[in-house]
Amino acid sequence: MMTDKFQPMEEIKMLVDNQQMRPIWFDGEKKIARVIDQRMLPHKLVIADLNTVDDVIYAIQEMFVRGAPLIGATGAFGVYTALLQNQTCTSEDLVRECNRLKSARPTAVNLAWGVDRVLEACLNVNVPADRLNAARNEALAIVEDEAENCRQIGLHGLSIIQEISRKKGGAPVNILTHCNAGWLACIEYGTATAPMYTAFDQKIDIHVWVDETRPLNQGSRLTAWELGKHGINHTIITDNAGGHLMQHGMVDLVIVGTDRTTRSGDVANKIGTYLKALAAKDNNLPFYVALPSSTIDWEIDNGITDIPIEERDPEEIQYVQGLDQAGNLVKVLVPPLSSPAANHAFDVTPARLVTGLITERGICRATREDILALFPEKRATK
Amino acid sequence: MMTDKFQPMEEIKMLVDNQQMRPIWFDGEKKIARVIDQRMLPHKLVIADLNTVDDVIYAIQEMFVRGAPLIGATGAFGVYTALLQNQTCTSEDLVRECNRLKSARPTAVNLAWGVDRVLEACLNVNVPADRLNAARNEALAIVEDEAENCRQIGLHGLSIIQEISRKKGGAPVNILTHCNAGWLACIEYGTATAPMYTAFDQKIDIHVWVDETRPLNQGSRLTAWELGKHGINHTIITDNAGGHLMQHGMVDLVIVGTDRTTRSGDVANKIGTYLKALAAKDNNLPFYVALPSSTIDWEIDNGITDIPIEERDPEEIQYVQGLDQAGNLVKVLVPPLSSPAANHAFDVTPARLVTGLITERGICRATREDILALFPEKRATK
Repeated sequence: MMTDKFQPMEEIKMLVDNQQMRPIWFDGEKKIARVIDQRMLPHKLVIADLNTVDDVIYAIQEMFVRGAPLIGATGAFGVYTALLQNQTCTSEDLVRECNRLKSARPTAVNLAWGVDRVLEACLNVNVPADRLNAARNEALAIVEDEAENCRQIGLHGLSIIQEISRKKGGAPVNILTHCNAGWLACIEYGTATAPMYTAFDQKIDIHVWVDETRPLNQGSRLTAWELGKHGINHTIITDNAGGHLMQHGMVDLVIVGTDRTTRSGDVANKIGTYLKALAAKDNNLPFYVALPSSTIDWEIDNGITDIPIEERDPEEIQYVQGLDQAGNLVKVLVPPLSSPAANHAFDVTPARLVTGLITERGICRATREDILALFPEKRATK
Repeated sequence: MMTDKFQPMEEIKMLVDNQQMRPIWFDGEKKIARVIDQRMLPHKLVIADLNTVDDVIYAIQEMFVRGAPLIGATGAFGVYTALLQNQTCTSEDLVRECNRLKSARPTAVNLAWGVDRVLEACLNVNVPADRLNAARNEALAIVEDEAENCRQIGLHGLSIIQEISRKKGGAPVNILTHCNAGWLACIEYGTATAPMYTAFDQKIDIHVWVDETRPLNQGSRLTAWELGKHGINHTIITDNAGGHLMQHGMVDLVIVGTDRTTRSGDVANKIGTYLKALAAKDNNLPFYVALPSSTIDWEIDNGITDIPIEERDPEEIQYVQGLDQAGNLVKVLVPPLSSPAANHAFDVTPARLVTGLITERGICRATREDILALFPEKRATK
């Protein structure tokens, strides 16, 4: 089973008001980035320090941090951390550390994007002593950019929920989501959740079906916690339930996030997303994917053949973490230990099943031409 | 959380050789039926006595026993138990007890079928003192009929696996199944697993993808245990994973069981089955449903509108049972307790997504005409 490599720095009683909280921030006193160790949520709020590149890689691989934008931001601070450990390191050494960072998780395109953006900012600085500041500033800029992107995604996605609410005469809009593409996965607002938070703040009546999202239960542990803290009506369901709810008119809309989307609109997201997209299609329901454009891989078309799908430790399936009766966070073994398990972490939803992409620049269909119409500066990379 | 109403009668170390085991049997000495308390598997093999009608109802509701054929057989022994408690009860009293038994779980049509078959046998006996024997004999006949039905399902389903194995030149046939429709759910062989056991015994190379089947994990707890005990290659996956595996050519065939199938071929089965059927269709893969004809509801056509779907306790989602590090069977809380959960236990797969039904009489398409061609004696009830 997974063990902690370093002790948590502090343990805080769950915040009642989480509005000031972000999943990553720069600590000006310690001069390091700090993150929430999300493996312990919703039962404990544990903060971890990122002192070394190894800490950063460990936090990414062991999923202290997860979600495309947050992985990108954490990778970005990883470059700063590399320089903090060795302020006079050569460009070659820095590139090598960046390559180590980028290989921490294979599926999220944001990781390489965040690392490369900070690396480039550093390599443009001629005085080695100034690189540390440059790295910090660029990582902070990425964090603020992501927060602003999510805010824009919320504003654009709001129109979809408004329209359904209007058609339903103000009756609750039932939105299904898979995994956690909330502020815990991003910086603020989230991606898939941004339209929900925005609609809720506009007093639109919404209710969210939260897929528990096996094996790591990011839906029941994280999305439910986030939505609950914000006061949004929600109900946890098994990953198996969405199709049944759709058949019976209990879902109006699906919104999910993505870890990598191809320039043609194929969407890699948490394993099981494809099944929900199939069910939405079979029931004529809109299926939207919310994403900052940093999640688009402008190099590839076919997500099923070209996006590497991470296989994670089977123990994530075999053991389930939760609170025991004594209030301790423990892991329990569910299946016979003699039975092997396979843990594919993501799947790809073909663009034909996607109603639209909600980006920071607006909503578009999941086609190469429509995506490029929103991001014309990418036409050159075709 | 669920608590035991009665103490388990005995606790046996897991059998290495389970070939003599059935999930229900009549104990000639105690003159009662006994069942495996399947909630404790795979970690403990606990046997429970069915002394009273309340015991039978409790064992059905709390899922000591589950799976359509086994629920039917248990209900059948329930009628015997009612007479055991009150051998001189009036026919009216017996009918009332039977109604209580039939309402223990709403979705499985076999429950009413099994209870009514024994009730009818009893009511045909004029001497009240002879009813007890009549009930026992009829319940035993049901058990033997179900075992024979499953054997026949295995022989018919074998042809499908043989054909795929031949086309693949003897390479492993990858079969995906959802929930547990194995011998634990039936009496012997199982329904969905019967073709697998039969193919394995014929030395055909097979490998089974076992959906863990949230919330009660009947796949990872029961199907994996069954297949492992028999020596069949298998791998546990999350319920989310099947679509991805199908996209990548890692599944050749899906076989599931059913709790109730309409005369038109709509299939109610464990929640999430519909999503797998959609994925099989999207990837041009055969999706078969294995069932004894006692599972067919000859009264209804439209499964989505006409089959009642049981909603079970949300705690089944919130708490997960497994072995802790000390080897104790415990339940742990996964989501925030403040978040509600909804627990729909079944969904309905429309006949249009079903390649065929594997019955004790042979394989047919999931259409009213093809089903009636196999069971022409049911034409009268149209």
